[in-house]
Amino acid sequence: MTESPEDEHRRVAGILSPDLASEAARLDAADPLARHLSAFAEAPGVTAYLDGNSLGRPLADMPEKVAQFIRDDWGTRLIRSWDEQWMELPMRLGDRIASVALGAAAGQTVVADSTSVMLYKLIRAAVAARPGRDEIVIEAGNFPTDRFIAAGIAEEVGATLRWVEPDEITGVSVDDMRAVVGERTALVVLSHVDYRSGALADMASITAAAHDAGALMLWDLCHSVGVVPMQLDDWGVDLAVGCTYKYLNGGPGSPAFGYVRSELQDSIRQPIHGWWSAADIFAMGPEYAPVPGIRQLLSGTPPVMSMLGMQGMLDLIDEAGIGAVRAKSISLTDFAVRAYDELLAPLDVRLLSTRDAAGRGGHITIGHPSFQRVTQELWGQGVIPDFRFPDGIRLGLSPLSTSHEETLRGVVAVRDALLAGR
Amino acid sequence: MTESPEDEHRRVAGILSPDLASEAARLDAADPLARHLSAFAEAPGVTAYLDGNSLGRPLADMPEKVAQFIRDDWGTRLIRSWDEQWMELPMRLGDRIASVALGAAAGQTVVADSTSVMLYKLIRAAVAARPGRDEIVIEAGNFPTDRFIAAGIAEEVGATLRWVEPDEITGVSVDDMRAVVGERTALVVLSHVDYRSGALADMASITAAAHDAGALMLWDLCHSVGVVPMQLDDWGVDLAVGCTYKYLNGGPGSPAFGYVRSELQDSIRQPIHGWWSAADIFAMGPEYAPVPGIRQLLSGTPPVMSMLGMQGMLDLIDEAGIGAVRAKSISLTDFAVRAYDELLAPLDVRLLSTRDAAGRGGHITIGHPSFQRVTQELWGQGVIPDFRFPDGIRLGLSPLSTSHEETLRGVVAVRDALLAGR
Repeated sequence: MTESPEDEHRRVAGILSPDLASEAARLDAADPLARHLSAFAEAPGVTAYLDGNSLGRPLADMPEKVAQFIRDDWGTRLIRSWDEQWMELPMRLGDRIASVALGAAAGQTVVADSTSVMLYKLIRAAVAARPGRDEIVIEAGNFPTDRFIAAGIAEEVGATLRWVEPDEITGVSVDDMRAVVGERTALVVLSHVDYRSGALADMASITAAAHDAGALMLWDLCHSVGVVPMQLDDWGVDLAVGCTYKYLNGGPGSPAFGYVRSELQDSIRQPIHGWWSAADIFAMGPEYAPVPGIRQLLSGTPPVMSMLGMQGMLDLIDEAGIGAVRAKSISLTDFAVRAYDELLAPLDVRLLSTRDAAGRGGHITIGHPSFQRVTQELWGQGVIPDFRFPDGIRLGLSPLSTSHEETLRGVVAVRDALLAGR
Repeated sequence: MTESPEDEHRRVAGILSPDLASEAARLDAADPLARHLSAFAEAPGVTAYLDGNSLGRPLADMPEKVAQFIRDDWGTRLIRSWDEQWMELPMRLGDRIASVALGAAAGQTVVADSTSVMLYKLIRAAVAARPGRDEIVIEAGNFPTDRFIAAGIAEEVGATLRWVEPDEITGVSVDDMRAVVGERTALVVLSHVDYRSGALADMASITAAAHDAGALMLWDLCHSVGVVPMQLDDWGVDLAVGCTYKYLNGGPGSPAFGYVRSELQDSIRQPIHGWWSAADIFAMGPEYAPVPGIRQLLSGTPPVMSMLGMQGMLDLIDEAGIGAVRAKSISLTDFAVRAYDELLAPLDVRLLSTRDAAGRGGHITIGHPSFQRVTQELWGQGVIPDFRFPDGIRLGLSPLSTSHEETLRGVVAVRDALLAGR
């Protein structure tokens, strides 16, 4: 379908969906967190960034902060900075994440490695901590690295994977999980928010059900940390991992975090015995002895420069409050569903996320056979959602950096690309 | 001993060692690489930085380069940068290190993880690739993380560690190694340059001896890459790991690299099956299948911002030529030994490195019971060597960023601190 010049003018003016446009304006005007939108770096040519659930945007002051880091901390304090600040950075940053986003007390969280490596360490440690149990329960739709890592470990330690088959839209329920766990279950590994559907699992109830079966519970928080509040301590979570480059805006490949409940720390032991987990890192003695406490999760030297980005974002989330961040997140995804109903449903686009805001994280997914092409075209126009094979588009709406109006621009652009391709 | 005002004046003027001072000036004037000294960021208050073997200095253009990265690659291209450049970055950077510093063809090196994690993957993979052999040969004085990681693996796979006992000054000889390897040896793990003495191992001969015994050979290149030329391909090295934050100036905790010889890549398999090592990373299918080639060493998302620093340094080494870098390195360590003889030997300081330049890497170590205190004092004065428990000072002389005159200032400062403490 070729667009007429009149239609193009009306589209650009946003008046093909006047109700949605005024609703977006109203919601943005009433948004108590709107003042934070200007904290992020400008992105020339980007009309709508809808992928904050994959790579959060940098804060505007990052270039100056990193320049100062290079000039002062690295370039002038040089090796002295290890003593002065960097040795403790993995624990300090871990505590900060725990306090701002995890509902966890200090001394249980560290920042290090990639999510995959941290998963490997924690799953290995957990399985070894439950001798006599030889099954790992994991969600069939879990993020690939979780499944691949768990499958590799099952193969090497002689354990069996048992699959939870969740609903594609609403995710894993307590009943799904109870049907699979049992006296042979050493560990349950689930994602708090599903990377495709955005389904939000009931962490408290599922953790309790794992414990009822005598199993340990490991949560992958990659798609929930920084956007969905949680109470790891109160809910008795045993182990957790998460990304810092999504809603914590740490920058591409910023290191993961790992959480181990205090009471468990004496009874688990991770397999990669690098010097950073040694009782006295600089004694350099003949025998390895693990340090007590959460530091034992470390292996090698952490990538300090890649740990700078998340610090400002944690401050911002702390200032806004994770509860307010969640409220805005719900407002954004609710609005996106409404825009979907009006603009995309008539074009045979499927909604692959639940309409129940309480059962959803910070993104929604929509499906259409043309979405691979559409994504390609949108990227060229500066409208940036995330494509997931085979035909999904994720609209990731990072609450502090995204407005309702930007969300609408994105949905309108998807609509226009579908129409143009007919 | 309290210093007289006259002595202080003469010391500050550097005329307590007039021969050494004029020799340093002569060597610096004749240094063909002297023009590169200005490529590094200024370090206000730092009189002598002698720890480039532990943390290389940032290049002067790093703040602007990183600012551009944050503004453009991360902040504006956003998620599109993964497709445009970052997905291939671990291999592209690996190839660059291979070409500039390893004497290795493309397709055998990746940048990822910490050295400790990369060691874990490679040692696990190597031991599994030699079924029927149950011994790992390792140097008793190897860097702690190498020993700890190897010991942990030996415990988990039921292998035995066999220790090579090297000479404390000259390091591991071929004969030392031949005395220990045998038909049960799966793998030999040695450091190319010893982290304490700086002893340089004969990589070609030792690798050949390992192969004679049917074992695989893994070299830890942390203390040699970027300062000592090598020919991994020609010498038949099987596996290698190395740091990028020492002589490659990648910044604190910049990720490690791993090398696997092409011919071996089909027969080894590392244990951390993250999505980055999957045959099709975005297929996200049910089963894990490793990608062929060197990419199989990856596990999770690499820390991109921590991969920026090394790029400029690799360009600089490439421009200077690794042979010229080595020549200057020898000139610097030779000069440091001469300064030691004149200024420190009379104060009962021991030389813990060989006088044979051909058997030495880029640093020398000296010992004295007061060195823990001395280091503390020197750091406060902006003279920054590295202290190694119990009583060693390492003088790490990174060739492109260090002059003979700076080296002398460092040795004179050590002398003065010893005298002042008497």
